[in-house]
Amino acid sequence: MDILIKNVRTVLPDDEKIFTVRESNIYIQNKCIAGIDSEPEGFSAETVLDGTGKLLMPGLVNGHTHAYMTVFRNYADDLAFTDWLFGNILPLEDRLLPEDAYWGTMLGYMEMLRTGTTCSLDMYIFPDEAAKARQECGIRAVMSRGLTGSSEDPGGGERRLREAVAEIEKWKGSEGLSFMLAPHAPYTCDPGYLREVVATADQLDVGLNIHVSESQDEINQINEKYGCSPVELLDEAGVLKSNTVAAHCVYLSDSDIEIMAQRGISVATNPVSNLKLGNGFAPMQKLLARGINVCLGTDGAASNNALNMFRDLNYLTLLHKGTTRDAGFLSAYEGLKIATANGAKALGLGGVTGEIRKGMKADLILLDIEKPWMKPENNLISALAYSANGSEVDTVLVDGKILYKNGEYMTIDSQRVYYEVEKICRRLGMRQ
Amino acid sequence: MDILIKNVRTVLPDDEKIFTVRESNIYIQNKCIAGIDSEPEGFSAETVLDGTGKLLMPGLVNGHTHAYMTVFRNYADDLAFTDWLFGNILPLEDRLLPEDAYWGTMLGYMEMLRTGTTCSLDMYIFPDEAAKARQECGIRAVMSRGLTGSSEDPGGGERRLREAVAEIEKWKGSEGLSFMLAPHAPYTCDPGYLREVVATADQLDVGLNIHVSESQDEINQINEKYGCSPVELLDEAGVLKSNTVAAHCVYLSDSDIEIMAQRGISVATNPVSNLKLGNGFAPMQKLLARGINVCLGTDGAASNNALNMFRDLNYLTLLHKGTTRDAGFLSAYEGLKIATANGAKALGLGGVTGEIRKGMKADLILLDIEKPWMKPENNLISALAYSANGSEVDTVLVDGKILYKNGEYMTIDSQRVYYEVEKICRRLGMRQ
Repeated sequence: MDILIKNVRTVLPDDEKIFTVRESNIYIQNKCIAGIDSEPEGFSAETVLDGTGKLLMPGLVNGHTHAYMTVFRNYADDLAFTDWLFGNILPLEDRLLPEDAYWGTMLGYMEMLRTGTTCSLDMYIFPDEAAKARQECGIRAVMSRGLTGSSEDPGGGERRLREAVAEIEKWKGSEGLSFMLAPHAPYTCDPGYLREVVATADQLDVGLNIHVSESQDEINQINEKYGCSPVELLDEAGVLKSNTVAAHCVYLSDSDIEIMAQRGISVATNPVSNLKLGNGFAPMQKLLARGINVCLGTDGAASNNALNMFRDLNYLTLLHKGTTRDAGFLSAYEGLKIATANGAKALGLGGVTGEIRKGMKADLILLDIEKPWMKPENNLISALAYSANGSEVDTVLVDGKILYKNGEYMTIDSQRVYYEVEKICRRLGMRQ
Repeated sequence: MDILIKNVRTVLPDDEKIFTVRESNIYIQNKCIAGIDSEPEGFSAETVLDGTGKLLMPGLVNGHTHAYMTVFRNYADDLAFTDWLFGNILPLEDRLLPEDAYWGTMLGYMEMLRTGTTCSLDMYIFPDEAAKARQECGIRAVMSRGLTGSSEDPGGGERRLREAVAEIEKWKGSEGLSFMLAPHAPYTCDPGYLREVVATADQLDVGLNIHVSESQDEINQINEKYGCSPVELLDEAGVLKSNTVAAHCVYLSDSDIEIMAQRGISVATNPVSNLKLGNGFAPMQKLLARGINVCLGTDGAASNNALNMFRDLNYLTLLHKGTTRDAGFLSAYEGLKIATANGAKALGLGGVTGEIRKGMKADLILLDIEKPWMKPENNLISALAYSANGSEVDTVLVDGKILYKNGEYMTIDSQRVYYEVEKICRRLGMRQ
């Protein structure tokens, strides 16, 4: 289906300023951006979207989330980390059924689409459920089954890895869907298991997704057990590679950062989650100064408590101005690139999504900017980082297909999702 | 006009938990909450609002803003503070006309209503313009003309104070509108002028609104000039009283906090603005531990860049979990009280607005919580602090009158406001 978005101010890449906003006509054909201001041959618009009063931009890329965890949203808040995780979330998670993860993921996708995310890197515990939800929804996603394993429980680690491999084999070739392997964290995988996961990822030619240096407790624990930092431990086990995404990275030494830069890994920073769990602030200035590819993630809804990338973009661009006492640090333009193109690069989708360029996938969001907080229109890139709240999104395309428009989901029965998720929470006895 | 809001989950004050959510019927008569679940005598609903799928809560109270500065929104961002203020904002402000402030204020009110704020403490430079906008809009407001003055320019300081007094006399008795005097800051008012303003405020029986200890530069400047801290300087000049609202308060010594507590002043914290301008983080743990009445403000749109109190509530409840490394610090419940009842108290409106209690003014907001990010409904108070983005607000009442409903403003011509504000920005040459 050919789609024309006409007369729309469009956020385009710009060599000098990173982004520029220019009124354009965007031609969408065969799932891709087939033309910018120049109509491709054989184009015949079945749908024309009028861009008057709107802003077109690349869909946001969520570099770290656990979509199924929406079922735990706003449960057990304001607790110390250990009580939150071990006293509340993990006991509930133990009672979660595979189909619960399906419904939770679907609720997550509803929220992502509604707030402008068109692609995410997801880590979860039930194979196939997230992929099933994605297949039905049509959003772009990179999937990674969370893996834990150690010599104390060799069977469990082996089983989880086998399941992850089987999942990748099963969904191979699905368009809009790719996979990574996700050894959960240095404190839940021992070096032997990490090496095994890395070898399997190499065989399958997929990337790695892992939590790294999220809390001071983790630093202490790894240091006590191995006498090194989590980054050093992972590097020794071969985990840090150019297709590795390391989430969080709050507690890093200069030498950790040097190792990460040399290995060419990407970092998914999660500013909201790191605050919410009392972990603090990533060393953003050093990461960027060293040229590391930083992308942006929301983390799960249990520790955010939203999957709204516009909010995380706002935190990303403001928070480090505070920590560095430098109002000029991490501009709106740099932040928007981190939330789009850098995310795509981290997820192995550079040149595929995250930018509005001819030939790239039509993963696009259209914002209604006739809102008081988006006026006056002094600088629309600033407005995206500093004034938008995500509710401006009124149309979302993934792979050239409209998935959300004016409050309606084209592929999701939203009332059914609400109903099923509430049912899960009641079954788990979560009503406070 | 009597209004009934029926079958609505309502955020009510609770002695033990601060807030509780209970399905209620709310009866509104003579501008007030005339009954909760019990119909007052002589009640005859002309309007019935169905609360199914919605949440009713007190309107948010913005404890520090400069509403007219919406015209500078998203202009000159990502600059160091000095370049931002002296190189960009002040030169523009010099060319602003009084009627520009009227339109900017109106745009600010549109945004406030749309995102759930029903009352604000406003500091501005053009007398009468903000009051005129407020009178037409119907939102509740406390007005304070910003005052600067020193022995180097005695005439200017005197003139501004006379204008402020004349403004207060002119609008005296307007319902929903009250006044404070606003000596701008310790670095723009000398001690002699401060004493004069305090004496005038005492005569008029109005409170004081002032910027205090916002930046490290301010601390250094006051220390060099007077050999003390801004708080000590203000205390010496008699500025710190139980009806004083001190905005920002980022850089405070323990002894400053002790003085502030003993004088019983209120602090309006501005977490987003303090980050945006690279000033950092208020010592929230110490302020609250010492029992100081902390309320929440957005500051102006030039340094936020929104007047969305839901966003500032989110920052308030998350940021200090990060600075204290304590996920249990400043709960959603405490944050919501700071953004409502504490604000009312600071503005001299305790018992008038900021809570849903029988006899208080009907300053209420109705949220449509049928949004993916508000589901599942594990804890609606948590959802307000951690998941809401302000776009959930669909009906706003101030003084028992509906001012905003389903995208429509009852008292504001929104298209005219957009048009006039854009015209101002073009005249000032702000298009980049």
